[in-house]
Amino acid sequence: MANRRTLALDAMGGDFGPDVIVAGAALSLERHPELEFLLFGDEARITAALTDHQALAARAKIVHTDTIVEMTAKPSQALRRGKGTSMWMALDAVKQGQAGAAISAGNTGALMAMAKFIFRPMAGVERPAIAALWPTINAECIVLDVGANIGANARQLADFALLGAAMGRALFHIEKPTVGLLNVGVEEIKGDGVVKEAHALLKGSDLPLTYNGFVEGHQIGQGVVDVVVVEGFAGNIALKTAEGTARQIGKYLKDAMRRSLASKIGAFLAQGGFKVLKAKMDPRRVNGGTFLGLNGIAVKSHGGSDALGFASAVDLGYEMSQSGLLKRLAHDLDEFHQNLTDTGARTSG
Amino acid sequence: MANRRTLALDAMGGDFGPDVIVAGAALSLERHPELEFLLFGDEARITAALTDHQALAARAKIVHTDTIVEMTAKPSQALRRGKGTSMWMALDAVKQGQAGAAISAGNTGALMAMAKFIFRPMAGVERPAIAALWPTINAECIVLDVGANIGANARQLADFALLGAAMGRALFHIEKPTVGLLNVGVEEIKGDGVVKEAHALLKGSDLPLTYNGFVEGHQIGQGVVDVVVVEGFAGNIALKTAEGTARQIGKYLKDAMRRSLASKIGAFLAQGGFKVLKAKMDPRRVNGGTFLGLNGIAVKSHGGSDALGFASAVDLGYEMSQSGLLKRLAHDLDEFHQNLTDTGARTSG
Repeated sequence: MANRRTLALDAMGGDFGPDVIVAGAALSLERHPELEFLLFGDEARITAALTDHQALAARAKIVHTDTIVEMTAKPSQALRRGKGTSMWMALDAVKQGQAGAAISAGNTGALMAMAKFIFRPMAGVERPAIAALWPTINAECIVLDVGANIGANARQLADFALLGAAMGRALFHIEKPTVGLLNVGVEEIKGDGVVKEAHALLKGSDLPLTYNGFVEGHQIGQGVVDVVVVEGFAGNIALKTAEGTARQIGKYLKDAMRRSLASKIGAFLAQGGFKVLKAKMDPRRVNGGTFLGLNGIAVKSHGGSDALGFASAVDLGYEMSQSGLLKRLAHDLDEFHQNLTDTGARTSG
Repeated sequence: MANRRTLALDAMGGDFGPDVIVAGAALSLERHPELEFLLFGDEARITAALTDHQALAARAKIVHTDTIVEMTAKPSQALRRGKGTSMWMALDAVKQGQAGAAISAGNTGALMAMAKFIFRPMAGVERPAIAALWPTINAECIVLDVGANIGANARQLADFALLGAAMGRALFHIEKPTVGLLNVGVEEIKGDGVVKEAHALLKGSDLPLTYNGFVEGHQIGQGVVDVVVVEGFAGNIALKTAEGTARQIGKYLKDAMRRSLASKIGAFLAQGGFKVLKAKMDPRRVNGGTFLGLNGIAVKSHGGSDALGFASAVDLGYEMSQSGLLKRLAHDLDEFHQNLTDTGARTSG
């Protein structure tokens, strides 16, 4: 039984290393004083970073290692030479039951490859997925896969629905999260064969989720469903396009407010409102991609995040760990796959 | 030789019919006084709409028809029963050389099916595409395919590059528009086989464009290239996701400015700036999906557009018509396909 209140942090990951990781963990500890941490990496640097964070120092254990995964390493290289790196050791601590989740701001591909190797996919899961939290008008939704794999067959998409629903249950505390399949809206085509087949699978199955049918790209941010399921290529493009659009509009807004003296004065008076807007649009608020479908929880923080961003990823790992979602998920997946076999449902290549 | 200054309008298409179509055409005529129009549809209703637009009435010819394509008709139905509808007749006028482009705000799937049937694909083009104009920080770029087809092989993606470059040449007046292939950014996978194969094709060919390699979703709005090439499923999702994100942030902004009296006063003072922002984000500014790869120009306006939005689609049709891009494009495609055959390049299924 994993220690759900202990989190394993790759203290060397990300663009800024231990300083940001430690400061982020300290922020998260303020919000969740019951947390404990295992910090993997260079002991001297971590110890130095901890001097400003005594509360954290009292609840953290440093496990020294000299080696790290370079940000530029290819996943296959990282996997071959990864044993003993701070990233590997953080994942292994989860595998050994010493921690409930591992959080890293390091090399995404390496983390994915190592997590898959160390945790192994859950029984019957052909493809793990990366799930992202997506800000919506009202709250947040979960979108997966945002880039673990390219392409997915119908059964794999249906698995994503179950994985996303499990995460939704853990984070939103809803027993049967609503799930939508991302599809295109041109009448001529209305989705390819795989999406239609996944639709039929989800509609026809008695799953622990509320299947809402197809959703389109513009509906993600409206929060029409708790979980949006999509194949990884389109999912990754959707996520990055949304991020880019937000930045683009931020720039429009800044330029517009600098146009005239009246605009400048107005913007000054409205700064309370702009602060709220900025907070809403702050990508650090919902930082953390989660690998789903493995026998362990790993969260990827954005490499360029500051302490506030890393703290969000730590919070996410903690919520996932605390919920004990893996056990329930294993059962749900097993039942779903059993039913597929019983009804002789075809899974396309 | 088509009459490039005459445009064929489906006067019955869209949610509002002749009133909006006529008002939109009148706006476009103000900007381009040399234009002439063929208006297809119910003569009585069009005549009534024209009473408020005498300048347009003097340069428009009404061609009466009783039948229209319903917004809910399936493309196959519309195709079977389409002959004699206002949409069909507008496309046919282009085919017959009476007009340089057809513009409709009607049923997208029907328009696509009819345009393909009436114009026929250009020699060697296996898949026509729908191209969208995408607002960027500096100007606009072209994104295709945004939904004509799902999936595309490497050769088809390379064709899209040529189609998009031809449109870029017509609209941006650049001899060799820059082109990027939309791809994912996770190091592990970096695109599927088809995208990589298309990359090799574009890199290795001597095409009338500047190939810039891969771009990611967040780079579209930064305007890093003039033309972004992507398979239709991911392209449609990217386009709708960007639209949805823009609306979402618009709502955040409105809510934020209503929070306090200071914000309200500030927003009032900054209203000049907000007007600029609103204009920047106005989806009517760049309205119109263009069907590329056919022997004729058809532009689809958003069905819910008002006169201003429809006028943008008319302007787009006119620019495309005026440029005479089809002849040059036919030559470029022919040369590209000839080279493919000569070098024995493989095209994957």
